[in-house]
Amino acid sequence: MAHKVDWSAALRPASPDGATIIGEERARSNISVDSLANYLLTPEFLKQQDRVLKEVLKEPVFKKTNQANLSRPDRYKLGLARGKKLRQLQDKLGWSEDDYHMAVYLCDDVLPYHLHTAMFVTTVSQQGNDAQRAYWMPKIEAWEIIGAYAQTELGHGSNVRGIELEAKWDPKAKEFVLHSPHLTASKWWNGTMGRTATHAIAVAQLMLPVSGHGAETKYQSYGPHPFIVQIRDSKTHQPPGSIIIGDIGPKYGYASMDNGYMLFNNHRVPHDAMLSRYSRVDPGTGKYTKPENPEVVYGTLTHVRAAIVMEARLSLARAVTVAVRYLSIRRQFKDKDSTNPSDPEMSVLDYPTVQIRILPLLATAFALHYSGKAMGELYTRTRKNIEEGDFETLAELHSTSSGLKSLATDLTASGIETCRRAMGGHGFGASGLVQLNANYLSKPTVEGDNWMITQQVARYLIKKAKALSGSVKSRATTRTEENLERYMYARQKTFNLGIFQDDASILQAYEWRVAYLVFKAYEAREIQKKPWNSLLIDFHKLSRAYSQSILVFNFHQAIQPTNPDFAHLDSTTRTVLRELFHLFAFTTMDAEAREFSSSGAVSNEDLDALPARVLELMGRIRPHAVRLVDAWKIPDFVLDSALGRYDGKVYEDLFDRAHRQNPLNNETFNPDYRTDEIVLGSGDAGQILSKL
Amino acid sequence: MAHKVDWSAALRPASPDGATIIGEERARSNISVDSLANYLLTPEFLKQQDRVLKEVLKEPVFKKTNQANLSRPDRYKLGLARGKKLRQLQDKLGWSEDDYHMAVYLCDDVLPYHLHTAMFVTTVSQQGNDAQRAYWMPKIEAWEIIGAYAQTELGHGSNVRGIELEAKWDPKAKEFVLHSPHLTASKWWNGTMGRTATHAIAVAQLMLPVSGHGAETKYQSYGPHPFIVQIRDSKTHQPPGSIIIGDIGPKYGYASMDNGYMLFNNHRVPHDAMLSRYSRVDPGTGKYTKPENPEVVYGTLTHVRAAIVMEARLSLARAVTVAVRYLSIRRQFKDKDSTNPSDPEMSVLDYPTVQIRILPLLATAFALHYSGKAMGELYTRTRKNIEEGDFETLAELHSTSSGLKSLATDLTASGIETCRRAMGGHGFGASGLVQLNANYLSKPTVEGDNWMITQQVARYLIKKAKALSGSVKSRATTRTEENLERYMYARQKTFNLGIFQDDASILQAYEWRVAYLVFKAYEAREIQKKPWNSLLIDFHKLSRAYSQSILVFNFHQAIQPTNPDFAHLDSTTRTVLRELFHLFAFTTMDAEAREFSSSGAVSNEDLDALPARVLELMGRIRPHAVRLVDAWKIPDFVLDSALGRYDGKVYEDLFDRAHRQNPLNNETFNPDYRTDEIVLGSGDAGQILSKL
Repeated sequence: MAHKVDWSAALRPASPDGATIIGEERARSNISVDSLANYLLTPEFLKQQDRVLKEVLKEPVFKKTNQANLSRPDRYKLGLARGKKLRQLQDKLGWSEDDYHMAVYLCDDVLPYHLHTAMFVTTVSQQGNDAQRAYWMPKIEAWEIIGAYAQTELGHGSNVRGIELEAKWDPKAKEFVLHSPHLTASKWWNGTMGRTATHAIAVAQLMLPVSGHGAETKYQSYGPHPFIVQIRDSKTHQPPGSIIIGDIGPKYGYASMDNGYMLFNNHRVPHDAMLSRYSRVDPGTGKYTKPENPEVVYGTLTHVRAAIVMEARLSLARAVTVAVRYLSIRRQFKDKDSTNPSDPEMSVLDYPTVQIRILPLLATAFALHYSGKAMGELYTRTRKNIEEGDFETLAELHSTSSGLKSLATDLTASGIETCRRAMGGHGFGASGLVQLNANYLSKPTVEGDNWMITQQVARYLIKKAKALSGSVKSRATTRTEENLERYMYARQKTFNLGIFQDDASILQAYEWRVAYLVFKAYEAREIQKKPWNSLLIDFHKLSRAYSQSILVFNFHQAIQPTNPDFAHLDSTTRTVLRELFHLFAFTTMDAEAREFSSSGAVSNEDLDALPARVLELMGRIRPHAVRLVDAWKIPDFVLDSALGRYDGKVYEDLFDRAHRQNPLNNETFNPDYRTDEIVLGSGDAGQILSKL
Repeated sequence: MAHKVDWSAALRPASPDGATIIGEERARSNISVDSLANYLLTPEFLKQQDRVLKEVLKEPVFKKTNQANLSRPDRYKLGLARGKKLRQLQDKLGWSEDDYHMAVYLCDDVLPYHLHTAMFVTTVSQQGNDAQRAYWMPKIEAWEIIGAYAQTELGHGSNVRGIELEAKWDPKAKEFVLHSPHLTASKWWNGTMGRTATHAIAVAQLMLPVSGHGAETKYQSYGPHPFIVQIRDSKTHQPPGSIIIGDIGPKYGYASMDNGYMLFNNHRVPHDAMLSRYSRVDPGTGKYTKPENPEVVYGTLTHVRAAIVMEARLSLARAVTVAVRYLSIRRQFKDKDSTNPSDPEMSVLDYPTVQIRILPLLATAFALHYSGKAMGELYTRTRKNIEEGDFETLAELHSTSSGLKSLATDLTASGIETCRRAMGGHGFGASGLVQLNANYLSKPTVEGDNWMITQQVARYLIKKAKALSGSVKSRATTRTEENLERYMYARQKTFNLGIFQDDASILQAYEWRVAYLVFKAYEAREIQKKPWNSLLIDFHKLSRAYSQSILVFNFHQAIQPTNPDFAHLDSTTRTVLRELFHLFAFTTMDAEAREFSSSGAVSNEDLDALPARVLELMGRIRPHAVRLVDAWKIPDFVLDSALGRYDGKVYEDLFDRAHRQNPLNNETFNPDYRTDEIVLGSGDAGQILSKL
């Protein structure tokens, strides 16, 4: 069997190969990819991406070749090494904070330093008083200390008021005593804390003495407050005797991150450990000053939610990029109605059952883009207002960011998985969507569980309805209020303008449905006085409807001819963007058809017509699909996908990864069950290469 | 900081602890867990489970403690060691094949031997002729050889007819020549093949010479046929020079399985390598004999699909067991309407927004149980018929198993993830659902992609409608045909009997909807002659509707008072099972409400009433939830879940896993980015233990 065999033919895919097909796909559309990319991402972003990527590609530590094969401890070590290298590059190359964050995005790993550069720095800078900021911020910015954010506990997550960790004020020593009364008080899940951090923001129940002495002291609780605490020695990196701390172990995704646990045992911290910008304890009198507006305490959370909404578009665009490219290349089955035996197999993306899964997600990426931008603007405006003492837009930001966080992360998480499944078997392998999926799955849960936080949207909207109901003349100032008022004063109880008249009528149908659900919820809660919990499912539906209407509103705004950015685009691109708007609006409406029908927002005739419209829209968008994903300009390095690579060399890359980059092929095994011997010798990986 | 600290209090969860709560939960219901378990699983199954589990627990190799921390190669080695041990135990303890499969289920790992004991043995025994079976089966059963099933290729999965591997008949040498003409012809994804197998069933295009000689020979293709091929040397375990083979690398789940790739280069196998029970090539004349009924070739696939449907119930029940137990124990927030400040926090499972995610899945596990059983019976009956030359029920089995495979795996895969998400943060960690999810996710894709195979259901039903439409008098023999006929002869075009009359009317509403969709599809395809591909989305909806009606039908059959197994149960259990039937039927109907409405199967008034009915049903089922999951008798060893353990010690187990079983805590790291040093010294894991 040792005769020389010529394998050269076996290294070429059957024709037409992926590179040829993807070239033909690009030739089918005249959308200007660069113009669209500049419009979506700005020329500044794209230049920065190119510049930073060039540096990241030079460093071997960022190579992804073997990372999926590593043990958990080795995966953490790789993450730590990457985190160090990025900061070293920042120093060496004079990167701005923004450049650094671009590098993190490109590196596409969950770095053990993540919480330091996110929640930790945000909390100290937003909640620290001037003296605290002056002391801590230089150390934080220089990474002299590495911080974590320890809020969630073993027994309490969403209900922050229920956390058990105590911070008792000792007026004599002028110290706070941090103590975990039970196992369930252990801090838990807190990123960067398990092995990396030297410091943490520990959120604890602030407790001030009211009477008694020593062990007999009685305390009053003032709710959760943030304390900055050193948790490990700066030299030995060991925790003090009064703190137990560690990594919680393997979990879904995030293998490179050290999510931690932490118990305190009468651990003492000085008075100025309590971050005191908005609330403080007077070290002399022991008297508590509460924040002017209690909402400010949740500033960090609102920031993170807004950021999650803003980031969703690129996560989904990434999955869609891989799916669209691969599914254009992949061939499977001839057309069943074909009568010519020499007809080639069809591109998988030409099947309506594949289009219906992928193309609406492509449209969703655009929808998330516009609302992410709007969310970012609302956040910036609100922070600026708060700094100036104006809390007007905070309630809107809080509710909108909650509803959109819930909807956007649901859409993105399920969208990534839908893309992965649509790719069949290869979706499980080197698709680049396995790690993306595992890591993204945290988003629907963290920073407010997606079901729980929808209550905040309902509360906000019911309040609006209540305010409007009690008044005779118009009090509407926001679009939401105007919509509710319009519905309230409408004579008929069905909207039924018809959604195929013009784009504005689509938007109005969405808003009509919202208004119907708002007044239904208002009626149930405020008039019929139904128990809050009995309405939670309705509230969830309301939040979804409201957030969908926001996505449709912002998308609709963006494609107005009066919008100068949009008007600049060539006419094909404008047409396709409008088709994407329709596809997003119509598929969402079709999925929620019964609610649109029973709220009187859309007639059954129009709803019945949706599937055919959607099919037609998908047919029109299909030839532009590859160029549309190209415009998101997600580098191959980020995609890390044999299936989604720009040049279409799908099968070559899959084979290369399997036989050149797979440590399991370096050993030969003994399958004979009668022996416990596992490894029989060195593998045939080398032999395979030499054969080829 | 070295003062002695007493941590004993910190080791106890806040009261009431999980063990207390789960005890109270069990006390709330008087369902007899053992009777229900015997009814669901049979006393034989439960005894076997106990007996085999006892043996599995004795062997350290099955401990799951560290498996999530391992590198990919180590994970494969662990899987191989486990596979050997199971077979050794079978020999030692005289286990039957059934005992062995029970052990595999309990061991809950994807064993590298899996394809040998599944597709390989099934294919040889079903497709091999008498001589082949006599030769191969003893070797296979003794594990003298280890086999894989190599059908899928890099370029072709679902479309088996499109595979590229060629098997050309050489009439002179009386050999087949296996050859991969391109890279895309590489076998791909085939389990057990990457590193373990010595043999494989290679599915190849059978090509017989029609004219010419030598390199000029022209061949005619007879489609894909199975060949049994030795792929590695029995001693060195190295492949011959004419085969390139290896493991394809890391993927979603299945880390312990060696999914492989394989290329052939004019590899010669003898005449009897072709499995020839149904079709054969005469070695003398070179003439081909085709199978009497071409469907038999797909026998193996139908078997696997039926098995997937049968197994779905336990996978979903497992996720629901974990979720119900943990969510009963977990407390979060007080009732918003509570006016008493000393009210405790609510059990998370008391929130309707949590119930609506979990309790319908509990009902779904029962629905899958009954249809899984029915599917198993249909499979056995059909196999028996085929052995006797009767192919009558094969078409029904093929279409039902396709539709149910698609629906059951969709329900189970999304159900597992829904359970995981409902558990919030802890769902990501030691929930036991991370590995379950990652491994189960293959099911919607393998053995026929869930979207693609729904065409087979539509094809079957359209054929039925066509046959009935052409006839004057009744030709109905099956329930499906009766239903179609009833609809066809109905005078009115709405059913509208009302679904709240009795259970039969619920079933009839489901069947009305199916009939409506069948005739719509028939009309579009057969009368209007619409292109097949333009109807694929409708076909998918039809398959889902049909499969849902089967789930409802079998569930409904099972809870008839006339059913002796059911009548044997105590009255509480019977009532709760009927409520679970209603919950399954109503939540499914609510999710598909628009289709029930537009098909005229259910009135809008009834549909509007569903959410309140569902809320009420969930309230009634809630107290029985823990006992209902107990009845599935899934051992803690299988659950491998801190959250779902029977005794409710959730927080103690989470903490134990984090600090006692986590290798990352064995090292101390250096987070200072100015040095490339990663490890600073040995970890504080020991120190943590000594503290406690």
